[in-house]
Parts: sequence; structure tokens; C-alpha cells
Amino acid sequence: MTSTPNPTAALLVIGDEILSGRTRDKNIGVLADFCTETGLDLREIRVVADDMDAIIAALNALRAGYAYVFTSGGIGPTHDDITADAVARAFGVDLPVDDRALKAITSRYVNFEMTPARLRMARIPVGGDLIENPVSAAPGIHIGNVFVLAGVPVIFEAMLNSLAGRLATGVKLGTETVDCWVGEGTIGDELGIIQQTYPTVKIGSYPQFGGPGPMTQLVLRSADMGALAEAAIAVRAMVDRVHREKDITPAKRAK
Amino acid sequence: MTSTPNPTAALLVIGDEILSGRTRDKNIGVLADFCTETGLDLREIRVVADDMDAIIAALNALRAGYAYVFTSGGIGPTHDDITADAVARAFGVDLPVDDRALKAITSRYVNFEMTPARLRMARIPVGGDLIENPVSAAPGIHIGNVFVLAGVPVIFEAMLNSLAGRLATGVKLGTETVDCWVGEGTIGDELGIIQQTYPTVKIGSYPQFGGPGPMTQLVLRSADMGALAEAAIAVRAMVDRVHREKDITPAKRAK
Repeated sequence: MTSTPNPTAALLVIGDEILSGRTRDKNIGVLADFCTETGLDLREIRVVADDMDAIIAALNALRAGYAYVFTSGGIGPTHDDITADAVARAFGVDLPVDDRALKAITSRYVNFEMTPARLRMARIPVGGDLIENPVSAAPGIHIGNVFVLAGVPVIFEAMLNSLAGRLATGVKLGTETVDCWVGEGTIGDELGIIQQTYPTVKIGSYPQFGGPGPMTQLVLRSADMGALAEAAIAVRAMVDRVHREKDITPAKRAK
Repeated sequence: MTSTPNPTAALLVIGDEILSGRTRDKNIGVLADFCTETGLDLREIRVVADDMDAIIAALNALRAGYAYVFTSGGIGPTHDDITADAVARAFGVDLPVDDRALKAITSRYVNFEMTPARLRMARIPVGGDLIENPVSAAPGIHIGNVFVLAGVPVIFEAMLNSLAGRLATGVKLGTETVDCWVGEGTIGDELGIIQQTYPTVKIGSYPQFGGPGPMTQLVLRSADMGALAEAAIAVRAMVDRVHREKDITPAKRAK
């Protein structure tokens, strides 16, 4: 694949509810956009169940393989929230109640009893820092290269947006999009040759279905803006020629 | 985690467009629903880029760990469609043009030239069978315990729904849902005790945000219908008591 100079990243989504189909994940797309905007190269996503061994194995694989790992889910007060336990075990550290986390939670829940369940949310692995939760107080965790975020989408996104200063970010990739009113099979051979000519540009081809006729969207991405511009010119010239050959005028194009 | 007698399954989503945020995945939720309906225990999902080594590594890990592996994406005619190549390499077999696949494609594209790009879609790893594509003809691939499906959601779902006869399916889990108008922290301790009492029932707790007050949805799942019914009675009794203690009458509940 086209490598970029950007730091790599991975996401670990934790939760039975995604795997059972009960809940549609929304955090994958949010993190993908965040990485694209901040210049992180998101390379892998895994979704595992609320299962201690599965979480630990996935977390250890991802944190060894990528510069940053984000996790989503499992940091609430109930018995099925075992992410903090799994993170502590993965790092081989204890998981005591943390004074900073306790303060954040008690200052929010002034009219609530501090139940053992709520106290669970104040446990932070030794060596970990807090990630602020502006929505429901219970903090996320930053330890090593791992950022442990809530699964509830509004909290996940709020926590993510608070991380900017803690991440070494990279170059935001440039993007060019070329619309093409023929199927992929018609342009695939020439597109492959253009890809070979511009190895620092990643060219993706995405067929669109459901319209009145064939349509393919071509997306070029690169950190090398000069090569990106040249590759886009080559792709547009090829597509324009194919449109002329097939007599596909703008009026005949289906959106 | 609560084990079920059902065959395990995993999903491998292949595509830069998901990782870049350009495309929001729709296939994860569709497969999760399919597995729940047909009695497969979906245990893990991975998303990787259009990268040969990454696809092979993930595919080999998943096919060794689960009864079935479904893949999504990368079987079109363009240079970025490398899933068939990766599957052939993972299985250590050749990837010749297959007469059955060629027939399926040529019978559909009667007015189109058979370009080298289109011919790519007729390659099937040796030992593989075809999965019918009722939308755009280019077939999916069934080899070993791996089902290679298209990434375009309408085709992914059509291919998936054609697989029923090829899968050893299990028991559809029973589900009970209990709505609770307090936060998780209030019920977490008692819920944990109920979970311990009914180890064959998996109890999930899902806080709902964005309403006028706290609300938590409790979801019980099990293949053991007797234990499920008993656990649901215990959860409902606990929630009713908490509602009474907090004077949360139906009229005071926020939806």
C-alpha cells in the first residue's frame, strides 16, 4: 500500500451489542474522520466482545503494531464494563481507585450515592492519565500509546476531540475525486496503469449502484501534492476520453 | 463470556474507504443481524486496508480461530481489488480464471468487451466454489471456511442471503429487554449479582443519553430459555423496586 509519513493508528471497539447487531456502531466513522483530519494513518479496526481474554489479546496485538490505539466501550459502572480491568492486565499494572477520577465523578454526582458500581468508574491503571468526559464525568484513560474512550457515541466523540494536544499528528492527505459515468470494468485497465505511474498516490475505485446507469467514483489520496495533481490530471484525461468514446455527454449522465 | 453452543463466526472488512472515513460501513450491522438470525456466534470483526500482507495476516488469524469467516470488499475489476489474490495466497493455491465464473460474467455483460480488468473478476482460487451475485454477476468465493463477499452493501447482503444451505447454523438466542429510568450507577451492583446468579444468560447494560433524564436499557440474551425467563423476572423485580423507591411512576418516565 501507499505509505504515508503519518503516525499509524488502530481502533478496538469493545461490545457485545455491536456483534449481536443490537447496536449499529457509530464510532468507527467518527474515528476515521478524526484520523483523516489530524493526519493519523488509521490502519486497522477490531471489534471484540465483552470478553476479558479477547480484549487483552486484541489490545496487545494492536498496541505493539501501531503508534496509537483508541478503544471504544466498556468503561461504565456495570458488570459488563471490563475494559479498564483488561487494560490494566494488558499493561501488567494494578487498577486502584484514582483520586483524580473520584473527584471528577463525585463533583458531578453530588446528589447520588457513591455505590460500588459508580466507584468502578474511578479505577485507573497505575501510570495512566485521565481523559476528560464532559458529558457524564466518568473519565477515559490514557496509558502508554492507548486511549481508552467511552462507547456512547456522544461521549466517544467529545473525549476524542479533547486529545489533540496529546497526539503527534501528521500531514493531512490531499484528496481528488473524479466522477466517471461508466462501470469499473471499462476503465480498470487504464486506471491500473496510472496507479503504477504514480506510486505515492493511492487511487481507489468505488462503483455506485442503485442509479439509472453505471457510475464509478475515483478517489485519489496522497501526502505528495505535486504527484496528486499530476495523477488527477491523468485520471481526468482518461475519463474524459472514455466519456467521448462512449458518447456520454453531461446531459446523459445519471446522478 | 457466556458461551453458546453455536458455531463461531468472524468478519473481515477490506477497504481503504472505511479506514479513511470516506465510506461509512454498512456490512457489519447486516452480518451481525444475519448471524443473530441464523444462530451463528459472531465473535470478532476486523477492518484492514487494501494491503496484501494485512489481508493475508488477518484472514489466516480469523480462519484459524473461528468456524466461519466472512469477508467484505475488494473483489471488483480494478487494481485496488486484491481480495481474491490475498485469499489464494492465504490458502497457498493458484488463482486461475474459472470457467463457471467466466460464464456468469459473460452471460451478463453481453454488450461489453471482456477487458483484462473484467477478466480479473473471473479468477477463483483452486478448490473454491462460486457465490452467486444476482446484482452485478461477478461471483463471490467460498473456499474452506471462508466466504468472500462483495463490499457494495446491496451485493453483500444478496450474497449473504444465498448462503443459508452452506452453513451449519445454531440456536437463535432468546432476548429479553428491560427499560429502566435510572442511570447505570444506581442498578449496577444488583445487576452484577443477578448476572452471577444466571451465568448462562448474558446481561448487557446500555445507558441512553440525549433524553430529558437518565435511562438504561438492559438486554438479556441466552440459548437457555428457562434461565432467560428466570433472569428476566429477577431483573424486572429489581427495576420495579428501584422505580418505586425513587418514585419513578410511568408518567414521570422520559422516552
